Parts: sequence; structure tokens; C-alpha cells
Amino acid sequence: MPDKFKLINDMAVDNGSKIILLLLDGLGGVPWEPGGKTELEAASTPNMDALTSKASLGLSEVVAPGFSPGSGPGHLSLFGYDPLQNIIGRGVLEAMGIGFELEPQDVAIRCNFCTLDADGNISDRRAGRIPTEECVKRVEVLRTIKIPGVEIFVEPVKEYRFALVLRGEGLNSAIQETDPQRTGVPPLPIQALDPAAEKTAAILRQWWEKANILLANMPPANSCTMRGYAMDPGLPRFPEVYKIKSAAVAVYPMYKGVSRLVGMDVIEHGAETPAEEFEVVKEHWNNHDFFFVHIKKTDSYGEDGNFDAKVCVIEAVDQALPTLLDLQPDALVITGDHSTPSLLKRHSWHRVPVMIWADWARYGKAVKFGETSCGTGTLGLIRHVDIMPLALAHAKRLNKFGA
Amino acid sequence: MPDKFKLINDMAVDNGSKIILLLLDGLGGVPWEPGGKTELEAASTPNMDALTSKASLGLSEVVAPGFSPGSGPGHLSLFGYDPLQNIIGRGVLEAMGIGFELEPQDVAIRCNFCTLDADGNISDRRAGRIPTEECVKRVEVLRTIKIPGVEIFVEPVKEYRFALVLRGEGLNSAIQETDPQRTGVPPLPIQALDPAAEKTAAILRQWWEKANILLANMPPANSCTMRGYAMDPGLPRFPEVYKIKSAAVAVYPMYKGVSRLVGMDVIEHGAETPAEEFEVVKEHWNNHDFFFVHIKKTDSYGEDGNFDAKVCVIEAVDQALPTLLDLQPDALVITGDHSTPSLLKRHSWHRVPVMIWADWARYGKAVKFGETSCGTGTLGLIRHVDIMPLALAHAKRLNKFGA
Repeated sequence: MPDKFKLINDMAVDNGSKIILLLLDGLGGVPWEPGGKTELEAASTPNMDALTSKASLGLSEVVAPGFSPGSGPGHLSLFGYDPLQNIIGRGVLEAMGIGFELEPQDVAIRCNFCTLDADGNISDRRAGRIPTEECVKRVEVLRTIKIPGVEIFVEPVKEYRFALVLRGEGLNSAIQETDPQRTGVPPLPIQALDPAAEKTAAILRQWWEKANILLANMPPANSCTMRGYAMDPGLPRFPEVYKIKSAAVAVYPMYKGVSRLVGMDVIEHGAETPAEEFEVVKEHWNNHDFFFVHIKKTDSYGEDGNFDAKVCVIEAVDQALPTLLDLQPDALVITGDHSTPSLLKRHSWHRVPVMIWADWARYGKAVKFGETSCGTGTLGLIRHVDIMPLALAHAKRLNKFGA
Repeated sequence: MPDKFKLINDMAVDNGSKIILLLLDGLGGVPWEPGGKTELEAASTPNMDALTSKASLGLSEVVAPGFSPGSGPGHLSLFGYDPLQNIIGRGVLEAMGIGFELEPQDVAIRCNFCTLDADGNISDRRAGRIPTEECVKRVEVLRTIKIPGVEIFVEPVKEYRFALVLRGEGLNSAIQETDPQRTGVPPLPIQALDPAAEKTAAILRQWWEKANILLANMPPANSCTMRGYAMDPGLPRFPEVYKIKSAAVAVYPMYKGVSRLVGMDVIEHGAETPAEEFEVVKEHWNNHDFFFVHIKKTDSYGEDGNFDAKVCVIEAVDQALPTLLDLQPDALVITGDHSTPSLLKRHSWHRVPVMIWADWARYGKAVKFGETSCGTGTLGLIRHVDIMPLALAHAKRLNKFGA
């Protein structure tokens, strides 16, 4: 099989047409009760519904049937990267999310401040969810730690979370995570899972000992755990593969991280609501041809099991949608990175509704954007990795394949 | 994955049942306006519609989502050959289309007569679309060119197009195309793209110099460009893989070429209309068990953006269909090699409607053959490479897989 990115790159033309990929995190749902509606179906979405007359609807498989995708695979597949071939460690996403410029040999680690009791057992895995300013204070202390032969970066993320990055020769990320995922036991030891990671594990053991001494009198965050050791996999760059100047508008670091990982420009802004995010797109409309817009709260409320609040977020997106439509994109894709049914309170394996709105869409008969209409839509069943080629095709950005 | 052709060949039985594969080139479409119908849906097709009561309907992906197939990949996938693994140069299709018997080591080239101005720049890439008899006259002149160590064939195709075939030892097709795809500039140089093609490039440069001298006083076709350098890839032979005596009925050289490439018998005839082509099938009905019937004009009018004319061609096919039905084939497949929506005026990525009519089809509830009914048909979403196994199965030509 020839490389898919090579094929697409060969067909791609930069014709200046514009694409918006609007992602509602965890969009897909299931009915709250038999005979009922999903969150998307229960929401009043007059603007999206009006789009269906010039759109193709379908359901999309994010990874594989029965697989409930994490945020990393959910986004990578949406961007066209096979999520089974490209498994990205969380440390990389966390570091990139806060704007840290990772270098190819760096090992990035997602750390949590935690509370150790007098016996050295974890009494709180999140250190009482200390506020971000307390996190920053401790990070500054941790920055004083030096280990010969390696450069160390410590960066606050949010609340009890921070990122640790090691830079030097011969580092390796195959190391056991130290969070035991329960309390009343000590953190797991920092152990190499591969002989090639012995050096890195030794450095981290030294660092962790020093960190515990420095944090000893700073309860409740008097220690930390380490997870998601990872290196930048050096993915093909999205703007170059697809020949499109691309930008991401997201509120949360994780989604900025995955966008940066594939080489998109990440627009920094102070927006929080969907309406505010759409204004950011409008401000930057002339600078890019592809906009990835990430809406977080649909997923958050889904995970909380709050059906009505998830409906409200979808409605807020719909109300603000004219801001995007007024920009007259050549193609608009609305979908999710996975389903997060409120009934289930977690990411799920259910296929995700997707709408591609464009002059060249094969319109169907749907009058409402929802899982049921998508299930019989003219786009049919697709896979998330096919969304980008379809979006490019609908914006006339792909030439013919073969003579 | 075991070789698919081997698997199918192992299951295939020659039971004498008969299959017609009726291809309307560029059949798929999109509605001309929101809420409207596609060309196939707008056409009055009482005969095809009547077939739906004993047929399975579905939509077919020709290559991959978002990919707009060229004619080569469109037909190869329809014949069951993975279009991503079997990329066939246009020169081979062109040469085979005019009945030229290519040998395995030949390099075939698709040439266009063009007009060069006094400065050596191309002023017309198609030499004023000279009529075929002018093409023949110049081809006869070009046939006088001799180059030591290689046998050269020059064959007229149609209007300004001709085929050039080199036969000899150590030839290679990795050579840069010389058509700059625009006017006001000279043809691109004949350059090897691979060291193995240096010899071939040198021969072609000599040939082209001599050709320019001979054509100098024959304006407007006073030079030529070269494209689609290719060799016969030696594909598995269709009649042997599927164990079925196969024939192609087509009007245009390209489609005869791709049929010959896979080893079908190509029936020569003077038919032009769908009704006439169907009469050819009738005449040869007893000589073959598989008939590939190619209708060109649906695609031509789609590319012209002529919705109504495309509808007319579909209606003409439908009116003539009883000729084929009276032959009582065991299975009749009606589909396209890609979509060519009149709205888009080009080959497109939209899935192609497909109908398999047979006693053993899983009938559905459709009453009209069209993209919408196919989208919810009992055949579901299939891939073009699966059409042949399905056709064989419906004609009871495939035994059970495994014990």
C-alpha cells in the first residue's frame, strides 16, 4: 500500500479555498431513555439544521468498532493520522499544550502533585486539587534542581498538574508510571521498562528524591507522581501534507498540544465560550485557510452525566454559528473526536455524527442534525481518518487520482 | 492478507451462468440544487426501477473517501484490481485501446500533436484539434523515423492524439512528461527520472528531433508532446482469475484498452448508441459468459455541466435495457466507474450507485434506482473492488470459503 499521506499530498492543490473543522468534544451520545433523543437530537439547533439542506451527513468510526478513543487518538484520527499507528504519549501533548517547544530528543512527563502521609503512602493523588498559583510556587522551587548531564524544564500546567521535560543525549521514555492509581500505598518505583531507558530512570530517581526534600514542608503538595513519559514522534506536518495554512483555536492546553504536534499554528487568545472562540476565527480569517475549532464543554458535561448541560453547550454553539457562516467557508465540517454519552459518563465507542457542508456536497433529505439522521445520511459510514481527505475534496483541493 | 485473487480463484467455478456488467461512465451525481434530484434520480428509468424489486442497491467507494478517480483506477477497481496497488500509465491504456498488441518490454507513450511558434514555444497544445485524417497523414510521415537498436511504432488515436511505442532491450518508462500544460513556453525536455531510463530518454530525444524536422512544414501540427510513458504491468488475467469467458463492448479506445489490459476479449463493432451497443451484446451472447458494457456519454455530459443531457443518456440506456434483459442474464450489475456530477463538471469523490439484479439478490424496498435509494439499500456501502466477487456470487459462481 503506498503511503496515504504521499498520495494525498500528490493530489493536493493550494487553491486558496477555506475550510472550518468545528469539533464538539465528545459530541456523540445515546438516548437518555428508550425512544428518547440523544443530546444532539434534544438540542434546539436551527442553524445546524438549516445547513443540512446543503450538507452530507454520516456517522464516523474514530478508531475501530468497540474502541472508546482517548483525546489523543480522537484528534489524531480526525487530522488524518492512523491512531493505531501513531500512539502519542500524554507527556508530549501536555508539554505542547502549554506551548513548550519540545525538541526531538526530549522526554516529556506529565506529573501530578500529590500528598504523602508520614509513612510515605499517598493520601491524596491530586494534593487537594491545589489552585494553579500554588502549583506555580512549587514549580519554581523544583526548577532549582540540577542533575549533571541533563537539562531539566519544569512547567506548571493547571491546578495540581505540571510538566517535566528532560533534554540531553540518550534519553528514553520506556519507564514505569509511578501513580499507583489509588491511595494508601506509596508511589510506584521509577523503573526502566527497557534497558535503553536505564539512564533516564536513574536521572528521574535522583530528581524525584531531591523534589521530595524540597517539597517536604509544602503540604498538601509535598510530593509528585509521574505519568505519560513520551517523546515527539515527529509526525508528518499537517499544513505540508495537505498543502493548507492551518490554525487551531482551542481553550484547553491538551488540544493546543495535539494541534501543535501536527504542525498547526495555535492561535493564543482569551476566549472561553464558543461565541468568543468563533470571534477569534473571524479575527484571524485572512491569515489561514484551515481552522480547527475545539469546543470542550460538550465532553465535560457528558462525563459529568449532565445531559441538559451538554444540550446547552450544543445550543450555544448553534447560536454562535452564524459568526462562522458569515465568513463563507468553502467547506464546514461539524463533528466530534468521539462520543461521550451523558448516560455513560465517559468516552464511548459509539460512532460520531458528522456533517460536511459545501456547495459540492451530495445533499440528502435530513432536516435535523443528529445521530439518527446521520445514520441514514448521504455520507454514509466513514472513518475519522477519511474526514480530512473528504473536507479537502469538498473544498476542491484534491486533484484526480490517476489518469 | 492472502492474495485476494488466489482466494477468489480457488472458490470460482465455471458453471456457465451469465453476467452483464453495465457501466455508465461517471454515473453518480449530486442534486443540481438543495432539495433537488441527481441526474439518475431525475431521469425517467422505468426499466431500471422495475429491476429494483429483484435487486440489491448500494453505494460504492471507488478508491478511497475524498479520492476522485481517473478512468484507469475507476475501471481497474471495478474489475477487482486494487487501484492503489495497480497504477497504470495512460500510454498503455491508449495503445491497448487502439488494439495495439503491446509486448511485456514495450514502452508506450501518449503523444499529442501541438503547434510551436517561431520561438519554439507552444502556441496550441492540441494543434487546433486537427481532424483524425490529418493525424493519420502525419503519423505516416513519423513512421519513417528509424533509430538504431529499437523498433518504433507510431499509431494514430483520434484527432490530435497518437501513440508511440518503443520495443527493444532495456527500455524504461521513468521519463519526465514534456507537455508543460500551458502555452507560451517550450515543451519540457525529455529527461530520465531514473538512471535506468537514460537509454530510453536518449532514444526519445533523437526521435523527437527528427520528428520536428519532418513536421516543420506541416502546421498547425508541427511538433508533439509526450505523456503517460508506461509499460504493461502484467496484471493477473480477468478471465482466468474469475474463470469466466469475458468480453468488452465499448466505443472509446481507452475503455477497450483497459479491458484488453486485464485480458478480456474486446469485441470490435460499429455501434455508437447504447441501443446499438446492446445489440452487439445480443449478437455475441453465446460466445461469452461475462459482458462488460461501457456507456461513455454520461461522463462526457457530466463534464460539460449538462445535467439534462446526462439525464437523456441515462434514459436512452433505460429504454434500450430490454435488449439486455431479454437475454436473461443470471446477474446484471449497473453502476459507474466514478461520479461526474454535472454541477461539478468533473470526476468527483462521491460514492457511486450500484445495483445487483439477480434471482439471489437480497431484495429491498427501493422503487427507484438512485443515489438516495442506494444510500439505504440492502447492499449497503461496498467498495468497487468487491463488485466482481459479488457479481460472481450472485451468479452462483463462487463456492463456499472454508469448510
